[in-house]
Amino acid sequence: MSVITLTTDFGERDGFVGIMKGVIWKIYPEARLADLSHEVEPQNVRQAAYILHRAAPFFPPGTVHLAVVDPGVGTRRRPLAARLGKQFFVGPDNGLISLLLIHAETLGESIEIVHLNRSEYWLHPLSTTFHGRDLFAPIAAHLARGVPLNELGTPIDDPVRLDFPEPQQQGKTWKALIVYVDRFGNLITNLPADRLGSSLAEVRVRIGNHRIEGIAPSYGHRPIGSLVAVIDSDGFLEIALVNGNAAHKLGLKEGDIVEVECP
Amino acid sequence: MSVITLTTDFGERDGFVGIMKGVIWKIYPEARLADLSHEVEPQNVRQAAYILHRAAPFFPPGTVHLAVVDPGVGTRRRPLAARLGKQFFVGPDNGLISLLLIHAETLGESIEIVHLNRSEYWLHPLSTTFHGRDLFAPIAAHLARGVPLNELGTPIDDPVRLDFPEPQQQGKTWKALIVYVDRFGNLITNLPADRLGSSLAEVRVRIGNHRIEGIAPSYGHRPIGSLVAVIDSDGFLEIALVNGNAAHKLGLKEGDIVEVECP
Amino acid sequence: MSVITLTTDFGERDGFVGIMKGVIWKIYPEARLADLSHEVEPQNVRQAAYILHRAAPFFPPGTVHLAVVDPGVGTRRRPLAARLGKQFFVGPDNGLISLLLIHAETLGESIEIVHLNRSEYWLHPLSTTFHGRDLFAPIAAHLARGVPLNELGTPIDDPVRLDFPEPQQQGKTWKALIVYVDRFGNLITNLPADRLGSSLAEVRVRIGNHRIEGIAPSYGHRPIGSLVAVIDSDGFLEIALVNGNAAHKLGLKEGDIVEVECP
Repeated sequence: MSVITLTTDFGERDGFVGIMKGVIWKIYPEARLADLSHEVEPQNVRQAAYILHRAAPFFPPGTVHLAVVDPGVGTRRRPLAARLGKQFFVGPDNGLISLLLIHAETLGESIEIVHLNRSEYWLHPLSTTFHGRDLFAPIAAHLARGVPLNELGTPIDDPVRLDFPEPQQQGKTWKALIVYVDRFGNLITNLPADRLGSSLAEVRVRIGNHRIEGIAPSYGHRPIGSLVAVIDSDGFLEIALVNGNAAHKLGLKEGDIVEVECP
Repeated sequence: MSVITLTTDFGERDGFVGIMKGVIWKIYPEARLADLSHEVEPQNVRQAAYILHRAAPFFPPGTVHLAVVDPGVGTRRRPLAARLGKQFFVGPDNGLISLLLIHAETLGESIEIVHLNRSEYWLHPLSTTFHGRDLFAPIAAHLARGVPLNELGTPIDDPVRLDFPEPQQQGKTWKALIVYVDRFGNLITNLPADRLGSSLAEVRVRIGNHRIEGIAPSYGHRPIGSLVAVIDSDGFLEIALVNGNAAHKLGLKEGDIVEVECP
Repeated sequence: MSVITLTTDFGERDGFVGIMKGVIWKIYPEARLADLSHEVEPQNVRQAAYILHRAAPFFPPGTVHLAVVDPGVGTRRRPLAARLGKQFFVGPDNGLISLLLIHAETLGESIEIVHLNRSEYWLHPLSTTFHGRDLFAPIAAHLARGVPLNELGTPIDDPVRLDFPEPQQQGKTWKALIVYVDRFGNLITNLPADRLGSSLAEVRVRIGNHRIEGIAPSYGHRPIGSLVAVIDSDGFLEIALVNGNAAHKLGLKEGDIVEVECP
């Protein structure tokens, strides 16, 4: 009764995601299915990589993470499946797996990656535009029902990796990057809390023309409408507007810079 | 094989809801999960209270309703769980439960509420910004798998209650309030049908500069493009635009007044 | 452990879909539920008919497709259930079933349709505005748990059918219609690939003032930002903008014409 998560840029309007669920249940009726996101910006592989990486650790061992953000569908880009520690991944070889890989490598977990080239596990005829349905959903179902990874394809060790830069230190100042803007307009950075030292109340954040004094314990510790810096739920510096949308107010987006002065 | 419903203002884009499902299934793999809404307006506790209250009676006994609209996350606001008759609720103590409480009290159902303070049932480390993941989802899973409410926290009897006003009567006229605007732009009021008497065809509705003569049996009993008053599926007066959006056409929103003249 | 799919124009904000799931699970706790779409344009029966038809073949035999796009709710429009080959359908009699019917008839599958008039299988009191909850969800649950179709209503053979025109041929030129615009802005036509002959590279597409030379194997075979004609995943001609939105760029919508010259 394994879990399969689904992450796509398909939206929720056209039935594409439902079709993948039908395909999965035809092969493995016991699968439990959880949508992570289908509102990934079309073709935004980096965004999906971030969502996957943040969610995966909270799922049971043996979960299969099916991710289809696939601008290269129908070209020579390889279809992949991988085991990263105790979690599985299925999707195109375009970097979706980048952050999951870094994480597994950092933890010293065992990693297996295969190029999916055993077409007897796919639907036929294989379309050129919807491998989510014809290739990735069937593979996810077979993995979840226990087919070993190495039956589904040939081992590889050169998956595509996207560059996710680290924050830069200059003396007591960190230059961090905004790596994700969530639905609330909260700005998540790539700066881990453990770089900030122990005097969080004395940290200063500069973001555009704005300054924030101190890291607050949570949003509600600052007045409604004010900017607040907090440690997000994954342990990274986050900038928010209390009961508002910081991204709109500051006009900032992924890739923009946040400067952080430690005491 | 209990059901857990999920209601949040997290949206469907960032993976937050999927993460809560992973947490639930790690603790209680048999849970069946139904999303009520994740498109609650950010921080709009009243809207979520209304959605919960309307949906709960249609779920099986023993269902756990997990609701996380939580502007006070990480502050001193209490986390709660409650049994209201045969249904359970889990979420922050900010009024989300208000209408469910009134309903249970009106029916004379037994009610138990606990302040969730037994941290051995939570994830650790507890983040300050995502109690949906670290506290409420684990509690919902434990409740659904049968852990008694009083093991999860300490009984309380003073949950936060939001004010939901009743319609006001002046002679033969009711002043009702719009309490919800749905996706179709239908305007749901707080006026129960049983206040309208038995001659529904002679009831007159005044809303802004518009008048509607009579309560129709359903939308399709009036021409396309005309305003219509009907009894909604929960037994309250509703104003709609046939095959259109009454809220847009009339420029009305939650809290606005509807006057109703009974014969 | 049958599957029930859900297709509505209810949106995901108000909890209506969740309520239908509660009703289903009260009657048939083992049902596995897959959302196809709840973002059908309000009252757009044709759009829902298209989504249903495209998705149904990918679901396991015995799946029940529950579809509620129902501008006539509460009027004399009939509620229907049908068996089309090995799949079931439940919803209002307004044409939602049109393309599923054509498909089943073309394949020579057996077809049974009943007018749902056995109210002992419904919720009571029956509202006039939410038959999705009170009538169609209970019927879907009963069908999925094995109640025979003919216990739920009286056989009929005159379901409402919407007109879905065929492409027109004039010499070597086809006049096709755009029948669906998906979330990516891809324009799906009603022209099956087998009408295009075998020299796909020599087909010419005219759409507004634009021309496309040749049908490409997939999107990624043309440069980013260029218009491309491909065969979609159901075998129909599709016009797309590589990594962009063709509908926005060309200002086209459902019902617009695409001209196709075969060699």
